[in-house]
Amino acid sequence: MSLTDDLAQLETPCLLLDIDRLQRNIDRFNAIAARHGVTLRPHLKTLKCVEAARMTVGASGPITVSTLAEAEHFARAGYRDILYAVGMAPAKLARARRIRQELGADLLLLTDSTRLAEAAAGMDLDFLIEVDCGDARGGLPAASPHLLAVAAAIEAGGNRVRGVLTHAGHSYGAKDPADVRPIAATERDTAVAAARRLREAGYAADIVSIGSTPTVAFAEDLTGVTEVRAGVYMPFDLDQMSRGVCQPEDLALSVLATVIGHNREAGRILIDAGGLALSKDISAHAHLPNVGYGLVVDPETAAPLEGLAVNGASQEHGKIDIADPEWYARLPVGAQVRVLPNHACFTAAAYPGYRLLQDGRLNGQWTRVNGW
Amino acid sequence: MSLTDDLAQLETPCLLLDIDRLQRNIDRFNAIAARHGVTLRPHLKTLKCVEAARMTVGASGPITVSTLAEAEHFARAGYRDILYAVGMAPAKLARARRIRQELGADLLLLTDSTRLAEAAAGMDLDFLIEVDCGDARGGLPAASPHLLAVAAAIEAGGNRVRGVLTHAGHSYGAKDPADVRPIAATERDTAVAAARRLREAGYAADIVSIGSTPTVAFAEDLTGVTEVRAGVYMPFDLDQMSRGVCQPEDLALSVLATVIGHNREAGRILIDAGGLALSKDISAHAHLPNVGYGLVVDPETAAPLEGLAVNGASQEHGKIDIADPEWYARLPVGAQVRVLPNHACFTAAAYPGYRLLQDGRLNGQWTRVNGW
Repeated sequence: MSLTDDLAQLETPCLLLDIDRLQRNIDRFNAIAARHGVTLRPHLKTLKCVEAARMTVGASGPITVSTLAEAEHFARAGYRDILYAVGMAPAKLARARRIRQELGADLLLLTDSTRLAEAAAGMDLDFLIEVDCGDARGGLPAASPHLLAVAAAIEAGGNRVRGVLTHAGHSYGAKDPADVRPIAATERDTAVAAARRLREAGYAADIVSIGSTPTVAFAEDLTGVTEVRAGVYMPFDLDQMSRGVCQPEDLALSVLATVIGHNREAGRILIDAGGLALSKDISAHAHLPNVGYGLVVDPETAAPLEGLAVNGASQEHGKIDIADPEWYARLPVGAQVRVLPNHACFTAAAYPGYRLLQDGRLNGQWTRVNGW
Repeated sequence: MSLTDDLAQLETPCLLLDIDRLQRNIDRFNAIAARHGVTLRPHLKTLKCVEAARMTVGASGPITVSTLAEAEHFARAGYRDILYAVGMAPAKLARARRIRQELGADLLLLTDSTRLAEAAAGMDLDFLIEVDCGDARGGLPAASPHLLAVAAAIEAGGNRVRGVLTHAGHSYGAKDPADVRPIAATERDTAVAAARRLREAGYAADIVSIGSTPTVAFAEDLTGVTEVRAGVYMPFDLDQMSRGVCQPEDLALSVLATVIGHNREAGRILIDAGGLALSKDISAHAHLPNVGYGLVVDPETAAPLEGLAVNGASQEHGKIDIADPEWYARLPVGAQVRVLPNHACFTAAAYPGYRLLQDGRLNGQWTRVNGW
């Protein structure tokens, strides 16, 4: 029996997670956090999986989540220190309070809005204030007069200002580690400056939270930072690989697919992993323009099949363009391939969970929590 | 009470389906099929919803599905005449047989492969043979010698050749109806020619199945065709609108979202519908380059908000770029908007179901079947 025999038992498309690779990636980022003397609060938006969280931070946290559905899921699984790192909406406050009161989690919320802070009055909630370090998404400038206004509105409503958060999402656009370092420095400086302003104004602000997978990987100095967030580093993907954040042998997530046709006139092999199974995200294309909707690899070894990629994707069809007709014999109808995704967070979201690869064999499965 | 009051009760992001618009779209395509004297076998890959199927073809079919999970779902709901319109894989044959034997459905399978036909020997299955009318996805040329070889292999295994299928997926790339008409003519000619070859060789081949939403909408003559397939016409989307297949007031699917932040320095409003809630599909951009990841519309009226679009999307953030700061007052934190998607099939796949709009109010919900 071999991995090939194991995989032949699976219906495709199917999501595979190599937990030996996952463990190495987790170890690498735990070591980075330890070296900087900061807490790693992993972002579970990618794997959304309790077992993966346990491998990273143990049974209670700290963790980061991207939806209240995740917050509930992890709170029910025993996680206590949970940061919901998306700007809060007034209509979600009651649900957040239930997660605190009924599920017992110390849920941290995020805002940069006095209007939200006023809507939260009297709800006994904890907040980080979001600052923008150049990503141009959520957050106030560290020097903004609104920063203190938001803090005042939070505490005027009987809630607590626990600190600040920033996210250098624009580090995903950097071409290589040398370009990431100055972004990481600005991310740190922004968060530290905002926290200092809050403390000088009398707020506790003991949490200084920064992070993105690239900036955590390549930060040189995190003085003043208390915690870092990173998520996609757990499985990594072609997008991160294309920017030098990981190597090909670090990619832990892949989609198992089956050849369902040959179109010899078009020079194409068709597989049953299309746009829904792989996602339409093509974020690796900036630096890896030839990977299409995913790189085709050997199902047993995960070695690239001489550059084959899913060049086109309709809903349930992946289209692999081939130059050499020899591929029709190498990949007959019924043969399996694996596809490495552009962006793990998006590909994984189409599946209820993972089949696990360990020590070169299939070994169990984990579930994930999707939706909102 | 108004629709605005109803929507304020919903957690966002949330998928809305306007069933008055859905009914109009269904009526339009039923009338097209009736005018041509052909059967409409709606493709349920977009809505994946039993209630929508019932509105279209009643309680038992015929229907088209894109996954065996859909085939099982609809078979359990009483559908009997089901076409799984994706090339079959050998490892899926046993599951297909269970759908026939245990769920009682007359399941039609699709292939263009003698290898698949040989793997199916003795399984008591019905097949359509796929032919390629220019889409360069699945299928043999109508004149291919392999066509008769596949038919022979199917019947040699004790299975049945029921007819032919082709799909003019390339019609999605046409710019306007005038460009679709010749594609529709070729789609018809290809299917009819392949069916004639099979009949002349002694196969029954009584099903001649063509279709895509654009070619069904604009076909001029369907002589020789027995049935048409179309799916995205039920809710329509920006992609179909951009090619003239529908009008703005036909779009039945939208994502309800909430404003979660203002980034005044960047000139952006942030909403809680990002890349997962909207999908990363940007297929409308070929002819509507300014719709981003979706067009922002008024939640009550569905009228465009002066061209606002979700210009950027990270996993859980949609970024709406604004030129006029007046928008911060019109869309404060907590305000709701609706977003019309590029491609309904992809956006809908992120949700467990629909909240229904009818007669200008919220009225119930339907579930859908996702995954494989």
